[in-house]
Amino acid sequence: MRIHIQNHPDDANPKISLEQWRDAVARAGDWARELEVSLGSNDAEFAAGIADAKAMISAGRVVMNLLPAVPAPALELIFVTHAGVDSLAKGNYVPTGVKLLNNSGAHGVKAAEYALMAVLMLANHLPFFGDRQREGVWDRKLASSVAGRRATIVGIGAIGGAIAQWLKAFGMHVTGVRTSAEPHPHCDAVVATDDIDSVLPQTEFLVLVAPLTPRSREILNRHRIGLLPAHAGVVNIGRGELVEQEALLDALDAGKLAGAVLDVMIPEPIPPGHRLWRTRNLTLTPHMSAGDPLTYMPRSLDIFLDNLAAYRAGRALPNQVDLTRGY
Amino acid sequence: MRIHIQNHPDDANPKISLEQWRDAVARAGDWARELEVSLGSNDAEFAAGIADAKAMISAGRVVMNLLPAVPAPALELIFVTHAGVDSLAKGNYVPTGVKLLNNSGAHGVKAAEYALMAVLMLANHLPFFGDRQREGVWDRKLASSVAGRRATIVGIGAIGGAIAQWLKAFGMHVTGVRTSAEPHPHCDAVVATDDIDSVLPQTEFLVLVAPLTPRSREILNRHRIGLLPAHAGVVNIGRGELVEQEALLDALDAGKLAGAVLDVMIPEPIPPGHRLWRTRNLTLTPHMSAGDPLTYMPRSLDIFLDNLAAYRAGRALPNQVDLTRGY
Repeated sequence: MRIHIQNHPDDANPKISLEQWRDAVARAGDWARELEVSLGSNDAEFAAGIADAKAMISAGRVVMNLLPAVPAPALELIFVTHAGVDSLAKGNYVPTGVKLLNNSGAHGVKAAEYALMAVLMLANHLPFFGDRQREGVWDRKLASSVAGRRATIVGIGAIGGAIAQWLKAFGMHVTGVRTSAEPHPHCDAVVATDDIDSVLPQTEFLVLVAPLTPRSREILNRHRIGLLPAHAGVVNIGRGELVEQEALLDALDAGKLAGAVLDVMIPEPIPPGHRLWRTRNLTLTPHMSAGDPLTYMPRSLDIFLDNLAAYRAGRALPNQVDLTRGY
Repeated sequence: MRIHIQNHPDDANPKISLEQWRDAVARAGDWARELEVSLGSNDAEFAAGIADAKAMISAGRVVMNLLPAVPAPALELIFVTHAGVDSLAKGNYVPTGVKLLNNSGAHGVKAAEYALMAVLMLANHLPFFGDRQREGVWDRKLASSVAGRRATIVGIGAIGGAIAQWLKAFGMHVTGVRTSAEPHPHCDAVVATDDIDSVLPQTEFLVLVAPLTPRSREILNRHRIGLLPAHAGVVNIGRGELVEQEALLDALDAGKLAGAVLDVMIPEPIPPGHRLWRTRNLTLTPHMSAGDPLTYMPRSLDIFLDNLAAYRAGRALPNQVDLTRGY
């Protein structure tokens, strides 16, 4: 069985090396030894490698830009090395009969550290102090511990669950928001997406980490931003489109929200002169919350091989995307 | 027994209220009910209250500025509502025969959250991204999880120990630095202050939280900054004087250190136009890491009453300052 791994030459994400593949195969156990692999980093290598590959591993952009142009008659599985597959789901890029796997599970550790950092930054007024530093103005303001305070996490899958676990460790009261209101082991309460309005007035820290789907698009809209208390802060590590961005920036500039930490926004990259660069009480990072150059790809390969083992055994695939649902 | 509590009118720290005192007395138990209290917030109220008080509670500035000018014949105990007593120890402000108690123990929860936030910010390049945001420039750079990485904490008392505990929870390797190299339950290793040079070349995150004494002054000097790896970050929540500040700012501006998060610096407040406001890869907060307007004073009063109970029982006082040692 042949696997083709395609790196993207202009991708800021780390590349997969042959050595990482061999290490992952060794971790997976005996069954994986017979797997053959090809590794490509340009169009010609992709065409050659995919011609008889049963599975491919790449970023979604390869699936959108290269796969439609070349024959891939043996292809059964596509594993994309990121969690969000909104662009792929929308554009019908996955050939009929091919299963799409996302990389849910690879991001938990790093992304949860980032989200906890962002919550602590909001609690400590870091976006406010960032503005003062820019202006060269000393303006002392005390801050309280996060213990006992209320956080709401929209999206409690692998990443959101890991975030909930950390926030609980700091003594916070955590409400999860997901499609259905089933309990979650690391949340004090779970509400269904349709009931999100009921928890926003008590939310001090709102963390967005949901997949982008037609239902979650602009889930934090102008009306809901208005329901948050004025001392609340917002963290977005999901997709920029989860937020009605102009409404969020209006609220920040008007002091109707205490602060925000955004790792994702519209557009990316942010062009020079864009309003985002000048919005008050806002901390920006360039879509880097989840990637980890040291551990990300090894963990991704482990997830792929777990799914491949399940596939060969005829079991359900843990990371299979439901293309109609979009995640 | 009379206690005098003196609030400082121009202090950014929270004030102590009569209600907080009564709540603390109720928590302390029956023995504390007979305590009498007076509360002052100006010079005349201080003079009246201190005239027959056996103990006083205030910021160190009251001890330096008001106490020398008024008679306090019954005074036996001074409890200052902060941890650092370097100014008091230096200036001989404590009357002979009076015991000085600091507020060690009140800062752990809040300060440890801040220090963890600062370490995660350095791991996620937040000081670097802060500069890019100021310039309006998108410059993507990935970051790794802190798990398995090395932190060194200089000063492992109440606050440093709480920080070590959090960093361990995130899977970090933690080295503590203190006067003598006794083991510490939350540190993988402890080295004596004199051996600090041996651990700096492997230190990725250096957290300064030691009390300021003649021995710890500029403990992070130019030579030691040069021993840190170029990807290292520095956090200071102790006192600005723990660092040879010009050397630190030189290293940051020259890219010889990845970043720093400073809650304390020289001078405070930072005047307009000071070099600190323009230094690269530096995040500044205005000396607020430890104070917590919601929980700080209640916790401080609990600590005072613990010490008072020990004093009345003739036991050693947990928070007594050794004025020759300076902490």
